[in-house]
Amino acid sequence: MSVRVAINGFGTIGKRVADAVAKQGDMILVGIYKNRPNYEAYVAYRKGYPIYTSAERVSEFEKRGIPVRGTLEDLLVKVEVVIDTTPSKVGESYRPIYERHGVRMIFQGGEKASIAEISFNALVNYDKAIGARSVRVVSCNTTGLVRIIKAISNHYRVEKVRAYIVRRAADPKEISRGPINAIVLDPPKIPSHHADDVKSVLGDIDIVTMAVAAPTTLMHVHMISMRLSENTTKQRILDILGETPRIATVSSDQSGITSTAEIIEVARDMGRPRGDVYENVVWEESIDVRGNEVNLIQAIHQEAIVVPENIDAIRAITGMEKDWRRSIAKTDSTIGIVRTFAKA
Amino acid sequence: MSVRVAINGFGTIGKRVADAVAKQGDMILVGIYKNRPNYEAYVAYRKGYPIYTSAERVSEFEKRGIPVRGTLEDLLVKVEVVIDTTPSKVGESYRPIYERHGVRMIFQGGEKASIAEISFNALVNYDKAIGARSVRVVSCNTTGLVRIIKAISNHYRVEKVRAYIVRRAADPKEISRGPINAIVLDPPKIPSHHADDVKSVLGDIDIVTMAVAAPTTLMHVHMISMRLSENTTKQRILDILGETPRIATVSSDQSGITSTAEIIEVARDMGRPRGDVYENVVWEESIDVRGNEVNLIQAIHQEAIVVPENIDAIRAITGMEKDWRRSIAKTDSTIGIVRTFAKA
Repeated sequence: MSVRVAINGFGTIGKRVADAVAKQGDMILVGIYKNRPNYEAYVAYRKGYPIYTSAERVSEFEKRGIPVRGTLEDLLVKVEVVIDTTPSKVGESYRPIYERHGVRMIFQGGEKASIAEISFNALVNYDKAIGARSVRVVSCNTTGLVRIIKAISNHYRVEKVRAYIVRRAADPKEISRGPINAIVLDPPKIPSHHADDVKSVLGDIDIVTMAVAAPTTLMHVHMISMRLSENTTKQRILDILGETPRIATVSSDQSGITSTAEIIEVARDMGRPRGDVYENVVWEESIDVRGNEVNLIQAIHQEAIVVPENIDAIRAITGMEKDWRRSIAKTDSTIGIVRTFAKA
Repeated sequence: MSVRVAINGFGTIGKRVADAVAKQGDMILVGIYKNRPNYEAYVAYRKGYPIYTSAERVSEFEKRGIPVRGTLEDLLVKVEVVIDTTPSKVGESYRPIYERHGVRMIFQGGEKASIAEISFNALVNYDKAIGARSVRVVSCNTTGLVRIIKAISNHYRVEKVRAYIVRRAADPKEISRGPINAIVLDPPKIPSHHADDVKSVLGDIDIVTMAVAAPTTLMHVHMISMRLSENTTKQRILDILGETPRIATVSSDQSGITSTAEIIEVARDMGRPRGDVYENVVWEESIDVRGNEVNLIQAIHQEAIVVPENIDAIRAITGMEKDWRRSIAKTDSTIGIVRTFAKA
């Protein structure tokens, strides 16, 4: 049995999730809904994805030679799940339409936590999402933080997390966002919103986050300090990360990789679609353990990190796969997730 | 009585220190030593600074219309203090020449700590530097960290410092340095060298530093967490920073400033030479106090932050001013240092 999926939006996240859905043996991408007949609409058309748009936009699409299958309503009646990948805060306005059609809903992290029953991460609360009407896959930075904290908290009580985020200022395709030469406090207050967003998944932990934006398009970087309930060792942390899905380690000594650019280059060289990196990438040399304090640095690919989470969210809310480990294994094998980067 | 000063090097630091020396009532800039007759040599010439170079370079300078007064030796015999602002690790090779001429020596943070008797910061160890033969003004990031830690430790025991540094990747004039689109772990291991460098000034404190480089030229940004020996309040921290020389606060709420670019723009608007910012600039809204934990974010202008420290170093090693507060007051008033940024 395959689940029928619609995707609203075909931007940075939507097009990646569409490709990932199309690769799953247990899912059918019924169609995508798109407002503008821009270059990304062409891409969808060339890939053979059925395109839906609003009635008043049909002629615009057809003028550009892009056939349209119908409206959002036409699409929603055909599916069991809709993945909303519209811009931040826009998903909220579509919610009533989704509800009217009785489809299960997956929103993205740009929406408020209150938009869905559960703020979702596959490593944390897959079970809780089984059979839910709606989930929200948390944002890229939050997903990256949640994964690493959860990995450690499977083995230790994590008493305190302090995370220092260097955000990429814009995605590669975003030509109007800045800065091109500044570091922007984003926001200029502490804590940043990420702390609360992490709590929306992990519950009430002691976490403070701060964030700046830097003029780069490739990946976020997180410098993280955690205090555990007991002493640990670097080898133990390496072992824990090694056994955790969607966390890959990289050795700068072995690979020469010291930057986000080189991480992305490996992804491109490996034939990853669009050079995508679905994994948290943690530098082995950065792991610094002093007693019960763990420091480390990881890179997070903002365009791709939530893609596997969206796929698992489909399996969870439909209840088609009750075992989170099996869902993750299916997702990860279809999209080619690894445990180590640029080494054997 | 005025002290006679020579400056070896007229690059990013050298030219700024030269201008600052020229502004002091108790100092005479006897000359600068420069290897290449490039655009910065023209600037020195236009400003009327006597230029010295090696014997074999004289004709190169003269061919370009830049008169030369003599060699390094000719310069050193005329002065009591030399400020070495040559590139990192180059100062070491000049040290024997300086010693031969019996001049007091001020090195920069690119040199090893062992090059001088004292790793210097005016807020910390001016007294210790009085009468020394040699001091090393620590690097820009270290100076920024030392100032803020010292400010707090004047009032509390600082039990722990964790500092997360986002470095500017290159200075504005550096056309060959990168990255232009990446975040580089600089270094990919924890701790970065800054922790040891801070200890070279402040002694053996519990400090861990990590650093990444971002594609920007303007300023470094430090996200800092400190644990104090007792609880404090945000107002108390604001008061402490307000009374500390060379630490200025900025309010994003009042000024709209959220980035390094806007800090520099204010410095340009205020008529600061080259748009220089000599102060640590701390965002008021970033100051986050929870019990005995203090978090904050500051910006550090890598080209300018050590300029006032070099001026004070001259007064300290010559012993011409025994009172560190008076030296700082003189330096700060001549170069126009402020306590708040973009507010009354």
